[in-house]
Amino acid sequence: MPGEAAPILAAVAHSPAPDPVAIVGASGALGFALALRLAHAGVPVVIGSRDGDRAVEAADRARQAVPQGGFTGAENAEAVAAVDTVILSVPFRNQSESLKNLRDAFTPGALLIDATVPLAAAVSGRATRMLGVWQGSAAEAAAEMVPDGVKVVSALHTVSAASLAALEHPLDQDVLVCGDSRADKARAAALIERVEGLRCVDCGRLEMARIAESLTALMISLNGRYKTHSGLRITGLPEELWPERKPAVAVA
Amino acid sequence: MPGEAAPILAAVAHSPAPDPVAIVGASGALGFALALRLAHAGVPVVIGSRDGDRAVEAADRARQAVPQGGFTGAENAEAVAAVDTVILSVPFRNQSESLKNLRDAFTPGALLIDATVPLAAAVSGRATRMLGVWQGSAAEAAAEMVPDGVKVVSALHTVSAASLAALEHPLDQDVLVCGDSRADKARAAALIERVEGLRCVDCGRLEMARIAESLTALMISLNGRYKTHSGLRITGLPEELWPERKPAVAVA
Repeated sequence: MPGEAAPILAAVAHSPAPDPVAIVGASGALGFALALRLAHAGVPVVIGSRDGDRAVEAADRARQAVPQGGFTGAENAEAVAAVDTVILSVPFRNQSESLKNLRDAFTPGALLIDATVPLAAAVSGRATRMLGVWQGSAAEAAAEMVPDGVKVVSALHTVSAASLAALEHPLDQDVLVCGDSRADKARAAALIERVEGLRCVDCGRLEMARIAESLTALMISLNGRYKTHSGLRITGLPEELWPERKPAVAVA
Repeated sequence: MPGEAAPILAAVAHSPAPDPVAIVGASGALGFALALRLAHAGVPVVIGSRDGDRAVEAADRARQAVPQGGFTGAENAEAVAAVDTVILSVPFRNQSESLKNLRDAFTPGALLIDATVPLAAAVSGRATRMLGVWQGSAAEAAAEMVPDGVKVVSALHTVSAASLAALEHPLDQDVLVCGDSRADKARAAALIERVEGLRCVDCGRLEMARIAESLTALMISLNGRYKTHSGLRITGLPEELWPERKPAVAVA
């Protein structure tokens, strides 16, 4: 019956305005580049930093690169408290401290997309080597540290900051997403895939972050050897990787 | 001077017939599929097995799939002694025993391409999980076990046996190659790239096999979730990854 189908069709036509996302560590190279790409895709971005003034300064810089972007700068806890989705993009040596300081800031049911990678560089080792993390991975360590109810997903290990920051550079690569809840992964994927050229692949439970995180070391090794900013692609996958996100099609 | 250039041009035109390769564990799925693809590409293959009769039987089966292929079946040590390049494609639980039994069989300066992956399946765990190997990776364990002078390269972790065995299936994916000598890696790459659709990427020292091997677990996880045989691609790399293999171009 056409009369009933109309509201559904309207919902399909106007996909809702994206919710804002906070990026903790957005004054770092990866965090800042992610902020640019997400804002470029229409996502309001709260740029978090340990220092509020530095956050505001980074937001100003971001606005110069993406004039139409919706940027706000705020101290990390303030940034996290303002949103339901947080990207954690800090060096491994700061991950634990950051999460401890943010414990009371998360909104109930918040999604934390952890992009931390335990490179040996954190303890003056090589960036092509990994540290062993007691919990298995930085993402599993994060899951242990966040308050109950905050959902942790691991992603964004293989996308280079330089490629992201070069807005004119087509990305055309995959993002491996690990997490214990498919719904949380789909939520993270919906956000990340707003960036043109990024495709999210469900890589299984959060424990698989042990493998996904180590790919950062591999990419750094490749980038050094081949003087490039490499990316990752999984071949042979079906067309539709997140079918649950497909809007219901109204049959008139 | 054109007169001098002629022999070089002739050498470029007629690339030499490939040397034979032995595959230890070629009665297994990956080893057998590799045997098919390599023979299909014109490489003489010695199919090794712990049991000589089983090896001959596997060679017969291979000949049925690739009638023009040059297959020989032999007990592992005999197979290894007959060639300068060996692919080790056995389950992790058999790697140590296999290499111990082959110690005296390797020809001097032989190249061992190790495709072993320490999946937790070796000890009845999940095939999507890895075992910790004392040396760091199965490849580094192999390097410790082979006699002096045998060169170890790690490769072929992410190519699925099913995709390889389906000869009509275009592969179109990358093979990560790790090893401590660039020359050894180039030698392995020259062999592997005879298989159409496989591109070899130098991933650094043998220790990087820790990361490359773990990708098998990741691919197994993806293949289960998406009911496919996935492959890996590194994006953003230069056109020529092994320039040293380019034949000298004669300028008349």
